[in-house]
Amino acid sequence: MRLSRYFLPILKENPREAEIVSHRMMLRAGMLRQQAAGSFTWLPLGKRVLDKVCQIIREEQNRAGAQEILMPTIQSADLWRESGRYDDYGKEMLRIKDRHERDMLYGPTNEEMVTDIFRSYVKSYRDLPLNLYHIQWKFRDEVRPRFGVMRSREFLMKDAYSFDLDYEGARAAYNRMFVAYLRTFTRMGLKAIPMRADTGPIGGDLSHEFIILASTGESAVFCEKKFLDLPVPSADVDFNNDAEIAGIVTEWTTPYAATEEMHQEDDWSSVPEDSRLSARGIEVGHIFHFGTKYSAPMKAAVTGPDGKEQLVSMGSYGIGPSRLIAAIIEASHDDNGIIWPEAVAPFHVALINMKAGDAACDAACEELYSKLWAAGVEVLYDDTDQRAGAKFATADLIGLPWQIIVGPRGIAAGEVELKNRATGERENLALKDVLERFGTNS
Amino acid sequence: MRLSRYFLPILKENPREAEIVSHRMMLRAGMLRQQAAGSFTWLPLGKRVLDKVCQIIREEQNRAGAQEILMPTIQSADLWRESGRYDDYGKEMLRIKDRHERDMLYGPTNEEMVTDIFRSYVKSYRDLPLNLYHIQWKFRDEVRPRFGVMRSREFLMKDAYSFDLDYEGARAAYNRMFVAYLRTFTRMGLKAIPMRADTGPIGGDLSHEFIILASTGESAVFCEKKFLDLPVPSADVDFNNDAEIAGIVTEWTTPYAATEEMHQEDDWSSVPEDSRLSARGIEVGHIFHFGTKYSAPMKAAVTGPDGKEQLVSMGSYGIGPSRLIAAIIEASHDDNGIIWPEAVAPFHVALINMKAGDAACDAACEELYSKLWAAGVEVLYDDTDQRAGAKFATADLIGLPWQIIVGPRGIAAGEVELKNRATGERENLALKDVLERFGTNS
Repeated sequence: MRLSRYFLPILKENPREAEIVSHRMMLRAGMLRQQAAGSFTWLPLGKRVLDKVCQIIREEQNRAGAQEILMPTIQSADLWRESGRYDDYGKEMLRIKDRHERDMLYGPTNEEMVTDIFRSYVKSYRDLPLNLYHIQWKFRDEVRPRFGVMRSREFLMKDAYSFDLDYEGARAAYNRMFVAYLRTFTRMGLKAIPMRADTGPIGGDLSHEFIILASTGESAVFCEKKFLDLPVPSADVDFNNDAEIAGIVTEWTTPYAATEEMHQEDDWSSVPEDSRLSARGIEVGHIFHFGTKYSAPMKAAVTGPDGKEQLVSMGSYGIGPSRLIAAIIEASHDDNGIIWPEAVAPFHVALINMKAGDAACDAACEELYSKLWAAGVEVLYDDTDQRAGAKFATADLIGLPWQIIVGPRGIAAGEVELKNRATGERENLALKDVLERFGTNS
Repeated sequence: MRLSRYFLPILKENPREAEIVSHRMMLRAGMLRQQAAGSFTWLPLGKRVLDKVCQIIREEQNRAGAQEILMPTIQSADLWRESGRYDDYGKEMLRIKDRHERDMLYGPTNEEMVTDIFRSYVKSYRDLPLNLYHIQWKFRDEVRPRFGVMRSREFLMKDAYSFDLDYEGARAAYNRMFVAYLRTFTRMGLKAIPMRADTGPIGGDLSHEFIILASTGESAVFCEKKFLDLPVPSADVDFNNDAEIAGIVTEWTTPYAATEEMHQEDDWSSVPEDSRLSARGIEVGHIFHFGTKYSAPMKAAVTGPDGKEQLVSMGSYGIGPSRLIAAIIEASHDDNGIIWPEAVAPFHVALINMKAGDAACDAACEELYSKLWAAGVEVLYDDTDQRAGAKFATADLIGLPWQIIVGPRGIAAGEVELKNRATGERENLALKDVLERFGTNS
């Protein structure tokens, strides 16, 4: 992509409404625009990050055996009356009347609808386990939306729902999602720590939040340092092996870890002092086992091996991709801007032409641009006529992992500069060595 | 994907509510479930088709220079008051009040919002041309939603919006989208014919609908037969060459083509009788040039080369991917089920094990399954214990382009059967020849 043609509206000033660093940087980097209170447009740069985040989530959901569907955003109120949550949910639920005066709502979550789908098709234990997920917009009418996409009203959510014959099956399903979440966040360059959590309006008796550490995090967290070194399962972990998956969950739930709300001073004091980590964290995922909370009122039952009808045991599993992107920025930035982990970076490389219009610089940039793209390296080429200083500032702000800087002096010596955004390290390299570095056959 | 683990709820009976063939087949093939009037869940098989259709649309939008963003579904009423459409739109618009009693609406289209985005960032002609698109859910509260996703209330839409300095630029932008649409529908295996159209509530003075021919189509269409042989531009068409693009548009708009509403008996009668094609068609795309209809009331202006402020000239360009999928089925099916064009088929191959449990059949299927997937061929493997007849019926119904049929007798002879879903042609092939046919190195 050539920056001269790319819609990247960089803001020079810090937007006054942005109270936290991720919100400020997403606005300044031209990723996001606020449309109304708690409602945002993803601009081209932000949309690319959103796509990459969703793709990683999707791959790990699929790997763990979940199947993707897509439910509508608008739901009938009747379903929520069946579960009893229509009145419970309060003003956070956006209630709507259609032209025939029927009660509808903009889904804040989908337990009812997916249970309705399940009960209309699945009748036998032989079709279990089943886990259905979708990535769809949700609306929660927060009194005071703020912090950009960290706490917005309209937001994207991946929500998965598992259906099993009994507690044991449901627990295995819960464990699979637990491990899928570990892999998901790790692939995004994050260290996420699972912590026991309250179940809130979803309900149930077992729940974990996945928390990433960030000094600007919304809540205090307490955990053992050993979490930082626990191995995350590789891509060939066997999701069909319940015992193996349960073993990983045990390993990740045995050390002490708690958010402020669930913190137990007694237990904490038994952790050796030099093993304690008190920090701040941001919730990026939340999983629930709630058994028959929905299947009982909504009569979602299957015939078991004994021929008897049995209510299914359920769980639900959420990740907010839009919120997650803000969390990544909170955890990975410096004073100059965002520092994207490679896997979710909107482009891999910022190619900076320090003197657009100079024949040698232009030629070198064009060669790098076309050869890198041909090799699958995503390049944003700053071919504009801005001065070099402004180009460097933009590149640092938008935080692509690598910068290739092409200037007349370097080119005269046959060299370009390669800068690592995260470490700030710079080195001079011959053109062909840069190409080689990115895996192309120059 | 193994069918034994895949959520594919095939219906044996024709659902009574389905009046048209695409709706019936989408329900029967387990692609879709109705949630409320005009509101549907895409089940796993349907979601795969939806993704492929959206990806083709996206690639062709990008190729033509449009840039992807993502606007929210819920909009502020104030924007629509600025353009004057808030009162015009009538009951089809889903109006909502939030907890603070602010007027909101579920976007039926996005001219206002995207114009607001444009005016807040773009100030100079040098940042033009600009075309922003998104693929997002829309809601139109039809009095009587019907025909499944062909006329639903909540539906997915790709809507692009172009901004240019003057009519000439806007016309070039219109032409680029015109050609992108030709390529988009052709890649999906469809023959789409552009026809002059009314502009309706979008407004403007120039508009084309893209119509595909299907005997079950919603409206009568009249066009010259030569459309069927007009060449569609290849992937290397130069979207930067306005003259080349305009030439293609001229070629595609010169022969007579009209929907019932725009039909002119006088012009039609001057077409030689044996060149006339009277048929039925389905609208799958609609493009509009409307100049300053939104930029004038909303004051979207840029500084021109002469230093003077100038209102931008706009167009908008829609494709409904959910509706398009129904249209593809209307155009491509037989009595036994859907016949997917290769590019949008949910899987390429149905691998049918006629005798699951038979060691030789199982082994051959496992080998085919893993080698085909490894070669990038998407295979749905029917490993269930249903009888062969039911498996054949399912495979025909869901309409994957190829069926590989593995039975004990064939395997004893070292052969499997390959069936082409569209033509019904069958041939017996050695295992390694099947693999070779699909481009694998067995």
